[in-house]
Amino acid sequence: MDIPKIDILVIGCGPAGMSAAINATIRKKKTIIYGGSFCSQKLNKAPHIDNYLGCYDISGEDLRRKYLNHIEKFGIEIVNEKIDSIYISKDEFNVVSKGKVLICKSIILAVGIETVGYLPNEQNLLGKGVSYCATCDGGLYKNKVVGVVGYNKKAEEELKFLEGLAKQVYYIPMYKEIGEVGSTTTIIKEKPQEIIGKEKLEGILINDEIINLEGLFLLKETIPPKDLLQGLNIDDKDIVVNRKMETNIPGVYAAGDVTGEPYQLAKAVGEGAIAGLSAAAYLEGKEKRLD
Amino acid sequence: MDIPKIDILVIGCGPAGMSAAINATIRKKKTIIYGGSFCSQKLNKAPHIDNYLGCYDISGEDLRRKYLNHIEKFGIEIVNEKIDSIYISKDEFNVVSKGKVLICKSIILAVGIETVGYLPNEQNLLGKGVSYCATCDGGLYKNKVVGVVGYNKKAEEELKFLEGLAKQVYYIPMYKEIGEVGSTTTIIKEKPQEIIGKEKLEGILINDEIINLEGLFLLKETIPPKDLLQGLNIDDKDIVVNRKMETNIPGVYAAGDVTGEPYQLAKAVGEGAIAGLSAAAYLEGKEKRLD
Ligand SMILES: Cc1cc2nc3c(=O)[nH]c(=O)nc-3n(C[C@H](O)[C@H](O)[C@H](O)COP(=O)(O)OP(=O)(O)OC[C@H]3O[C@@H](n4cnc5c(N)ncnc54)[C@H](O)[C@@H]3O)c2cc1C
Ligand SMILES: Cc1cc2nc3c(=O)[nH]c(=O)nc-3n(C[C@H](O)[C@H](O)[C@H](O)COP(=O)(O)OP(=O)(O)OC[C@H]3O[C@@H](n4cnc5c(N)ncnc54)[C@H](O)[C@@H]3O)c2cc1C
Repeated sequence: MDIPKIDILVIGCGPAGMSAAINATIRKKKTIIYGGSFCSQKLNKAPHIDNYLGCYDISGEDLRRKYLNHIEKFGIEIVNEKIDSIYISKDEFNVVSKGKVLICKSIILAVGIETVGYLPNEQNLLGKGVSYCATCDGGLYKNKVVGVVGYNKKAEEELKFLEGLAKQVYYIPMYKEIGEVGSTTTIIKEKPQEIIGKEKLEGILINDEIINLEGLFLLKETIPPKDLLQGLNIDDKDIVVNRKMETNIPGVYAAGDVTGEPYQLAKAVGEGAIAGLSAAAYLEGKEKRLD
Repeated sequence: MDIPKIDILVIGCGPAGMSAAINATIRKKKTIIYGGSFCSQKLNKAPHIDNYLGCYDISGEDLRRKYLNHIEKFGIEIVNEKIDSIYISKDEFNVVSKGKVLICKSIILAVGIETVGYLPNEQNLLGKGVSYCATCDGGLYKNKVVGVVGYNKKAEEELKFLEGLAKQVYYIPMYKEIGEVGSTTTIIKEKPQEIIGKEKLEGILINDEIINLEGLFLLKETIPPKDLLQGLNIDDKDIVVNRKMETNIPGVYAAGDVTGEPYQLAKAVGEGAIAGLSAAAYLEGKEKRLD
């Protein structure tokens, strides 16, 4: 099988990820960015930015374009797909996106912070019938009844995948402008109130009625870092890093909002730059040891 | 006496200091920057910068102008004077510049790194006849013979002050285009080789000859942080900070090259932003406690 091998995988295409990729590329490392569907929502939503030194009185959207232009000039590839999970394999990483595997030597986590909260009982039942990734866990639910909460339009791709497997699908979109869905799929437009189940998922409460489910997929823009990579040291919800942006796992770095407050562009860009340089230095150190 | 009182004094007018001042000003703190003679030499000397996200393919000088324009738009004052020393006084700071005292509630050290090295024996004899600040220590050398090593043209102001006090002055300029000096001053154009003295300054070796001195002033663009503020926690030459950019002294923050590698704009700007916000939060916390 032809598995693409990269030096540094940057996960997240906000300011932190872009700054990391630029600095890693300058150090001649084969770097690629996997980003969500849009790079980045937060930047696009910021009405007016006046605290990023050198760019006075600019809209978030204009700054976003300047950032993307910088990335283009460097010829850095952005793949607009979510990373679903990361597995450590010897001193490399196997990374899963849409059911495909990538291999990389180093990872920079620049995934921002999740703005959608947890549903009641979500965290208890994660891995007990509740999943964040259809292509990872869908196989477990062949000919079963599943629910899918789609937090954005991109979720419809994973929905399609599940429709090909499950007996019945309840689709609960959390956005407007819903596309076409399969004939076996029931769309529910009300918001979910609670996930039901104690040791195992039983269903979801919507409109004060329980829909019984065997599996439930919550398809968000991001995956909480602790679920993305097992064993990552997290404090509350922030990835713990030192001043080199190293996490507790060798070869894994983090930058931007995901490392904690203040949630600011300048911090994200600065930390991204440090993470990019640290990851490059890590790879150079490894090459030296192999000499 | 009318001593100006400020909330946050930013020392250093490179990218770190400017980013700090902008973010502190946004938080409505009375902020002022004291910078060296030029803001900043390093930025001006960088021929070509391509790793500051959003500004692709720009000269250091053009970026410097963008940064200064941002500062101007915010109406932030830059005083082009060096800070000579900082004293802790209860929970305020007394700061000395050119013999005048400023009072401030919080300090951000963004002084960059010194590029001129130490002279042999300089560190041993500091405070034992060797000084970095004419207006601070000049009074000790009334009617005595002093040497002055001037690392830039700005040193000539302090030279004038010493000429009014000392019996004789040897001036050793380390730059070209020397201005007018007093009639009692001897200019020596050769470079100093070593400072002479064991427990106490005896003189300076130039051209293999010792010039006997009672005091020696080394007037550089910057003052090493450990000499600027006694008790500051330093590791090798870097100011030790945590991720909030706090130093070991409450109310004192640091950002940029002075906190260690990598020496990069993005890091300086990011750390500056964090330091500015942390200092503002510190003052707000103090106000709350006083309520
Ligand atoms: C309305 C608003 C106004 C703001 N105003 C300002 C301001 O004036 N000044 C300022 O400094 N800051 C401002 N901010 C904050 C600023 O936008 C953030 O601090 C900054 O975007 C953080 O950058 P980041 O790269 O860490 O994360 P983000 O910009 O959030 O980017 C993270 C990216 O990672 C992607 N991602 C997440 N998980 C995955 C995965 N598993 N696989 C692939 N990709 C993934 C996401 O889709 C996203 O695109 C504002 C934010 C908002 C929302
Ligand atoms: C030739 C060259 C090329 C470079 N190229 C790049 C590049 O391509 N990309 C990149 O990211 N970085 C580059 N850099 C590095 C970058 O310029 C520095 O990392 C950055 O300037 C550090 O910012 P700073 O604010 O910490 O310090 P500085 O920019 O050094 O500013 C510190 C300021 O503080 C003042 N100061 C010091 N002591 C005192 C005092 N006691 N009182 C008052 N003021 C004081 C100084 O006069 C100075 O103006 C380059 C540097 C050089 C020299």
